[in-house]
Amino acid sequence: MQASAKRGGAGPEAGEAAGPEAGACPIGRASSLLGDRWILLILRDATLGLTRFDAFREHLGIADNILSSRLRRLVESGILVKVPYRDGGRQRHEYRLTEAGADLWLVLRALGDWGERHTQPDGSAGSAGPMRAVHASCGGEVAAGQVCGSCGVPVTRDQEAWLRPWRSPEPVPLAPPL
Amino acid sequence: MQASAKRGGAGPEAGEAAGPEAGACPIGRASSLLGDRWILLILRDATLGLTRFDAFREHLGIADNILSSRLRRLVESGILVKVPYRDGGRQRHEYRLTEAGADLWLVLRALGDWGERHTQPDGSAGSAGPMRAVHASCGGEVAAGQVCGSCGVPVTRDQEAWLRPWRSPEPVPLAPPL
Repeated sequence: MQASAKRGGAGPEAGEAAGPEAGACPIGRASSLLGDRWILLILRDATLGLTRFDAFREHLGIADNILSSRLRRLVESGILVKVPYRDGGRQRHEYRLTEAGADLWLVLRALGDWGERHTQPDGSAGSAGPMRAVHASCGGEVAAGQVCGSCGVPVTRDQEAWLRPWRSPEPVPLAPPL
Repeated sequence: MQASAKRGGAGPEAGEAAGPEAGACPIGRASSLLGDRWILLILRDATLGLTRFDAFREHLGIADNILSSRLRRLVESGILVKVPYRDGGRQRHEYRLTEAGADLWLVLRALGDWGERHTQPDGSAGSAGPMRAVHASCGGEVAAGQVCGSCGVPVTRDQEAWLRPWRSPEPVPLAPPL
């Protein structure tokens, strides 16, 4: 499934120009869809397994209207898909990654690697240690070339987990796409 | 030099919460600084060698006030640095990548790779062929593990160029940090 980077679907600034390259450049197209702080935070949380409106809201401390607008953009652009589930007697919806959404893991990893190297945690937040990508089955750290630094096998997305020690001592496997 | 992800320096949404992880998570810190479409487009252009206000404005078709605010944020957060130059009799400023700014190349590459796979060019914009990262000295395509697929050597940032065939048949070496 192709994500839709059509002009006009990309949120508050979609009506603005971005030069003659706007449509030709894949970085430009990706930036139109993803160039928003909340969008990136929602996608991080979705990659780590969050699916429900209330879960995103609580984890991000985001206002309902902002969360709604960002989830709608992500569904419209084919990055998340809205699927029904039953909550007791009520029908609700959850938001699951599409293949295009799941494939953002390397963008999020690159952001995290850069943030680890070039930004500082606030106050004491960083004392737990850095974020690390690990091979889910053996726990080895993922090394250059996306191979396991411990057992040496190539680590595909479905075999990767992210260790975020300020949250939990257990690595979190990346959420599979629907 | 560390980029500064302090709350309050990150633009229009800097006053908003992003949950208890806001400061601990490197993806969150990076998203606070970079989660903006114009910021990403300016950084793409800076990585490809643009340095001057007028050049960014013309290439992006961006309004002066928006460009000014984004450049100011990037300077405040240590991603760009403002340096004087003489233009005839006038002193002007240009914007150069810091080490932290230059180190965003892999974030931009990841965005471009994703955009290439999951978004479609508008109209006929894509007929020139995809963006490719190449080894500047031999022209070979950069392969998995960041090695040259042609001559086999590791390709560091200063040896990488981006071929963007809709712009030029010549690959553009990545701009060095100041």
